[in-house]
This record gives sequence, structure tokens and C-alpha cells, in this order.
Amino acid sequence: MSFLIISPKKDPKAWIEALKAEAPDLDLEVYPQVKDPSKVEYVLSWRHPHGIYRDFKNLKVIASMGAGIDHIISDKEIPEHIQITRVVDEQLTKDMSVFVLSLILEHLRNLAQHHSQNEWKPTSYQLPEDTQVGIMGMGVLGVGVAEKLIQNKFNVTGWSRTKKEILGVTTYHGDEQLEEFLRESRVLVNLLPLTSETKNVLQKSLFEALPKGAFVINVARGEHLVEDDLIEVINNGHLAGAALDVFRKEPLPREHPFWKNKKIRVSPHIASITNPVTVVPQILENYERMKEGKELKNVVDREKEY
Amino acid sequence: MSFLIISPKKDPKAWIEALKAEAPDLDLEVYPQVKDPSKVEYVLSWRHPHGIYRDFKNLKVIASMGAGIDHIISDKEIPEHIQITRVVDEQLTKDMSVFVLSLILEHLRNLAQHHSQNEWKPTSYQLPEDTQVGIMGMGVLGVGVAEKLIQNKFNVTGWSRTKKEILGVTTYHGDEQLEEFLRESRVLVNLLPLTSETKNVLQKSLFEALPKGAFVINVARGEHLVEDDLIEVINNGHLAGAALDVFRKEPLPREHPFWKNKKIRVSPHIASITNPVTVVPQILENYERMKEGKELKNVVDREKEY
Repeated sequence: MSFLIISPKKDPKAWIEALKAEAPDLDLEVYPQVKDPSKVEYVLSWRHPHGIYRDFKNLKVIASMGAGIDHIISDKEIPEHIQITRVVDEQLTKDMSVFVLSLILEHLRNLAQHHSQNEWKPTSYQLPEDTQVGIMGMGVLGVGVAEKLIQNKFNVTGWSRTKKEILGVTTYHGDEQLEEFLRESRVLVNLLPLTSETKNVLQKSLFEALPKGAFVINVARGEHLVEDDLIEVINNGHLAGAALDVFRKEPLPREHPFWKNKKIRVSPHIASITNPVTVVPQILENYERMKEGKELKNVVDREKEY
Repeated sequence: MSFLIISPKKDPKAWIEALKAEAPDLDLEVYPQVKDPSKVEYVLSWRHPHGIYRDFKNLKVIASMGAGIDHIISDKEIPEHIQITRVVDEQLTKDMSVFVLSLILEHLRNLAQHHSQNEWKPTSYQLPEDTQVGIMGMGVLGVGVAEKLIQNKFNVTGWSRTKKEILGVTTYHGDEQLEEFLRESRVLVNLLPLTSETKNVLQKSLFEALPKGAFVINVARGEHLVEDDLIEVINNGHLAGAALDVFRKEPLPREHPFWKNKKIRVSPHIASITNPVTVVPQILENYERMKEGKELKNVVDREKEY
């Protein structure tokens, strides 16, 4: 039985090292070097070439290298019986929380303007206690970000597909409460999972439901955002700006208009970087559980798509 | 008896409005329109023309409009018996704390680089829990900043002239412990009062005592910093950079080399802006106390210079 890594678009070296350090006897293979596909039961996967999973007749588990699993389930040819797992990592949540806090403070204190304009132009600033931040997506990451912001005196609301109760957070859910949630969000943070329902959710009518001068942060997936709509509502003055860490195409192409828009702040997908050393233990634990026929941890609901 | 405002370099309109709202019957004058200087017992002062206080024979109190009083006591012709007070304002402390946190997070998460370089260049980031921040000056502002940083998981140390004990902060004091304090400070925040002793404290040998790659934040006074020394240790690679909010000359002149140095981030003295509405009550309280012969609050020790 072999453990296979499939990561054709990102060098898996750090993963291999971390796995070998924890489990020196692991029968580890790296795609496309696979001796016998029928022996592969467990795959650690990041942006696999779609369609290939049909060839692994005895595959039982596909473990995502990260918190997102959209890159796996967007492949419609993965047999139903294969379980998909995601990473749930406290450090990922912490890093995301610090990053979102950094972006919001940078915005409230006008740091990007002051630090780039080469001009002495004092401006007034907005206080955390006067700022309502709306978080879309109240999963592990959304709740982590909410807690960090509450600790720093922000007013925090949350929106999710289904009803959630979270201490200190006014929560909204479903389509019928979306507008109410948006109406008071001076800063909107997108942390939704990417599913067929949430694709393109950040579009014109959503932006127009935000108060004038609102600021949008996308740290989830590029496919959540209709890029032209964002540019339109920023250029017509409805939104104050946006900070984007994820894009439909990464790296963001050099000719993309986001680069030159002074009100759009681009960062190169660095909100939270998975550290293989901290994540490998949960990957290996699930591998052992699979071998022993036990229930796996952090299994994805393929119907919900997260 | 009249209450005089002296603020020749900054429009005192907001102060006048706030004072009149709280005390409509106040006999308020604004320098240089003074009917009878001998009737002035209380002055609300910001960067007065040096030497003028000799002309107010019955002056008892000079109240600074802000937390700093260096602009008052640098005038050596103020008679000894005149009491000087400063503003102690919770909002000022909060704003300063949020601003320093914003600058440190911007640095740790490389936001200024990402947001200005128009290039996809992911870099690794440093975590708050792995970052030691050394604060020079453990007064009200220093302690407020320390608390905010501790809440956000930073390791915080403090240095002050005299010994202080602050919960959660490793403290150092005096010249003999300065080097030990500096040696581990990955980020150095200056919040010292400006006195004859602390003038030029941020100079070459201090910078060289910091670890390689350290980052310096000056949010106190421009006169604390020897500007050429900072440029030298940044350009020779010893320091990673600096964020400066205060300058020897403000506005910072257009031709100043700080503007063009990519590792120096300039902001136009916006760490915390005194709001007259929140501060006027303590100004008026001291005015009443003076009239009743009571002890004043927030009196400055002219020997210590803060």
C-alpha cells in the first residue's frame, strides 16, 4: 500500500521532508512516478490534473494540502466512495486572523496612502470601535478572524449559508438576511468556501448593498469575485477600495488592471501559508485511521462542497 | 480673570468651540488679542512664541493642548512658580496603541512592499508570537501600547529611565540595562518624553546594539532621532527599515531624503490626534481647581521634564 503526493504545480519538497521526519518507513511516492496505481489508497493532493483519479482503482482518501478543497471537488470524475479531507490547522487560522487585522488597520489608518504618496497630507482616521466589520463565511477561519477583531474592539457581524450562533457576533444567514447584513458593513471580509453556490458571490448588486465608502477584503478564492464589477464600483466612488489576496489567475498577470488601480491593494496569496511540519501529523493520523478502518477527521461534505 | 488660548501655529477653532460648549460663561481670549495680560492666570498652550510668558505677571498655569510639554519647557524663561500640566487622555493612548500595532503588523506582513511593488513576489512572514518588541518609555502611552501588543501575542519588553514594574512586560531601566534591552528587540518603538536627556537618543550606537534586521518606529518626537545615523544603518543593511511619524521639521520638507528611501515609511504625525471635545473637561477641571486653590491634576515635573 502506498502513500502518494500529487502536487504538479507546487514543489512538494517540504511535504516530503516533513512526512519522512514523522514516518521514516512510509512507502512514499510522488506523482507522476507511480509504480502500481492499484496500490495507492491515500493521496495528499494539491491541484491535481483533473481526471487522473479514475486510474487509481483502490483509492480511498484524497487529503487536501490546505484548508480549501475546491481544487479537488471541481473534478467531477472522482468516484463517490472516495473520502476527501481538508486541513484544519490552528496556525492557519491564527495567521489568517492576523493578516485580516493587518489589512483592516492599514485601511483605517490610511497607511498605504501615507506610505506611498510622498506627500505630507494628514487625514483623520477611523477607530476600531466605530467600525463594523461583516464577515462572510463563519467556518473555522471566519470565527477565528471574528475573535481576533472583537479582541481589538471592532463591531463584528457574520453571515453564513445556514444559521450559526457565535459569542459576541451578530449573525445573519441565508439569502433573505444578506442585504441586512451588508447594509451596515463598513468593511466586508470574504471567507466563504468556494462552492458552486458561492462562485461569483462578490458582484455588483452585493457591492451596491454595502454602505457608500465601504472597503472589501477577499482572502478566500479568486473565483468568488467578479473582477469587472469590483473595478466599476470602486471607480464610480461607491466603494473606498479593496484588498485582494486571491485571484482567478495566480500569479496575477502583469497586465491585469488591479495592479494599477490605486484603491486596490494586491498581495500575492500570503494570508496564511500552510506549514507542512505542523500539518503532517493530522495527515498521517488520518492515514493510520484509514488503514485501521476508523472514521477519518476533517472529512468534507461533498454535497455542501466544504 | 481670563482664560487664554495660545496656539499661533494651529487653528484653535475646535478648542474654542469645545470650551464654549462646556463653559459658556468662560472669559475666553485668544492670543495675540489680549486686553489685559495681568488678568491672565490660566493659558491653554501649543507651541507658543518663546519669551512671551514673562509678560503675564499673574499667570499661574500653562496647560499643554497635548500629551507632550517639550514645546513649553524648551522656553527657559518661564518663571519657576508657574505650573505646567499635560493632557492624559485615554483616547490618545488607545489611538497610539492601535497605530503602533498597525505599523508593526504592516511590517511583519510586508504589506507596504506587496502593496507598492506591482509585482507578484510572495515572501514569508513573521508571527507576533515570534517577535520581541522593545518599547522605550514606559509612561501612560508606553504601557498602553505594551498592553495592546501583549493582547495580540507579541513578546514585549520595556525600557525606562527609572525602574518600573508592569504586568506581562520584562522591564529594563537606566543606561546600564539599555544594551541588554536593545539586544533582543526585533522591533523598537520610541515613546520617550522629549527631554534634554532623551534628545538624540536614537543614534548610531543605539541602532548598532539592535539585532541585525531590526525595525525602528518613532512615534514620540522628531528630536529623539539623529536622522543621518538612521539612514546610514538602513543603507548599510543593519536595520530592515523604519516607520517615522514625527520629524525635526514638520511638515517634513519635500526635499528630505526620508521621502525617497523605500525602507523608511513616513506618516504625517497622525499616530493620535487630540480631540478637544474629550480633553476640554480635564482642562476646565484644572482651571476650577486653580481658582479654588486646589492641587492640579497631571502636573509636569519640570526637573524630570515630563
